[in-house]
Amino acid sequence: MSAELRAIPVTGVPEIFAGDQLGRLLAERTTGQLQSGDVIVVSQKVVSKREGRIASLGSITPGEEAARLAAELGKDPRLVELILRESAAVIRAEHGILIVRTNSGLVCANAGIDSSNAAGGDAVVLLPIDPDESARRLRAELHEASGLSPAVVVADSFGRAWRIGQVEVAIGCAGLIALDDWRGRVDRDGRELTATQIAIADEAAAAADLVRGKDEGVPAVVVRGLERYVTAANGPGAAVLRRAEADDLFG
Amino acid sequence: MSAELRAIPVTGVPEIFAGDQLGRLLAERTTGQLQSGDVIVVSQKVVSKREGRIASLGSITPGEEAARLAAELGKDPRLVELILRESAAVIRAEHGILIVRTNSGLVCANAGIDSSNAAGGDAVVLLPIDPDESARRLRAELHEASGLSPAVVVADSFGRAWRIGQVEVAIGCAGLIALDDWRGRVDRDGRELTATQIAIADEAAAAADLVRGKDEGVPAVVVRGLERYVTAANGPGAAVLRRAEADDLFG
Repeated sequence: MSAELRAIPVTGVPEIFAGDQLGRLLAERTTGQLQSGDVIVVSQKVVSKREGRIASLGSITPGEEAARLAAELGKDPRLVELILRESAAVIRAEHGILIVRTNSGLVCANAGIDSSNAAGGDAVVLLPIDPDESARRLRAELHEASGLSPAVVVADSFGRAWRIGQVEVAIGCAGLIALDDWRGRVDRDGRELTATQIAIADEAAAAADLVRGKDEGVPAVVVRGLERYVTAANGPGAAVLRRAEADDLFG
Repeated sequence: MSAELRAIPVTGVPEIFAGDQLGRLLAERTTGQLQSGDVIVVSQKVVSKREGRIASLGSITPGEEAARLAAELGKDPRLVELILRESAAVIRAEHGILIVRTNSGLVCANAGIDSSNAAGGDAVVLLPIDPDESARRLRAELHEASGLSPAVVVADSFGRAWRIGQVEVAIGCAGLIALDDWRGRVDRDGRELTATQIAIADEAAAAADLVRGKDEGVPAVVVRGLERYVTAANGPGAAVLRRAEADDLFG
């Protein structure tokens, strides 16, 4: 339980385009290093690019609601239209910030759309449609290419209520126990524990981010030392980390 | 930038009581291992115990507001009284959950009070009065005992809005750039970056938690590979991660 944790950057991965064999490329770049008990944390942006989740703002005609919200928030109406299309509900819209619940159930700013010119020209990068499915697909590809079955996490940077700065969280995963449930368990002195449900997948994403360096072209990080959370089955993924709409507080 | 990250548990630390030389004990348990560029992440609970931040519920007489809130929330009125004493403002009180802004400016459930019988009997553990000051004091003690100046993070498990499960965050730190500000910087292709402010101290706390194991008696973890964020000066601490009251959204 108390062994060391290591986070090892995967370097030398070329720029990824729609349809690229991302799992195979990651397997090639980690040959001889990757182990089945590892967790490989992959950046959302590279997963989205591989899935062709790129949109061109020039092709978007904003509807009425988008135009109204964009004027209120001082945002590009085409971007707001895209955000609304990607969203099931608007949670907050004030002070220039648009927090939504995405169609896949994530609560985040701007539906997670990266509009920093990351894809060149007027293109923006959307979140994967189903990030848990993205993780499962990557895991299958990694297995096919390497014979190994590391867990896969798809990670993105999210802001937090009441705290400054972003941290990486798991928007999708496969083969990882995303939530370690300690409720009812006791510590070594027989006392019940307070820290009741630990978001392992989010903590793994955060650990991986510390070696990524945003401008380094490191699309993936191998996290070693979490063997006890890695499972043969893909499991329910990061869906278990999404709080149901009716239960919007935290404890 | 892209070197490996390691998180190494510090084991063999005895149970801590008020006034114990925690910094010296941690220096002893890491002799020959600790380096000045390391970050040592220390559990809030052990810091609070060392500072005597223990209260006995039996000695608390709940006031009117505590009695009313406790009845509404189904909580122990003495615990609610303590939470209110530790708090500058109640942020939310519903569904049995009490979210407050603590006197030190942290937004969390139950003012971070650990009522899981962690201190034995009817005792509960309160957060340090000033966790950044706690981190500075620990750093000075570590330096005195070892001649080294690793950064220090005081970490606690917090719930999150809109996400299930807790993650460790930095409630205090010293000698660490807690927030890495990328605003205005560009990536290797000259494009502006979206992930603008990375909460390094929170990600370090999360990485450390992955090797702690809640029942293992691991009060501290050495995180290696963050030398570029470790500073000689103590700096502003984790205060930079606390969002001002008027700015309660996230971006």
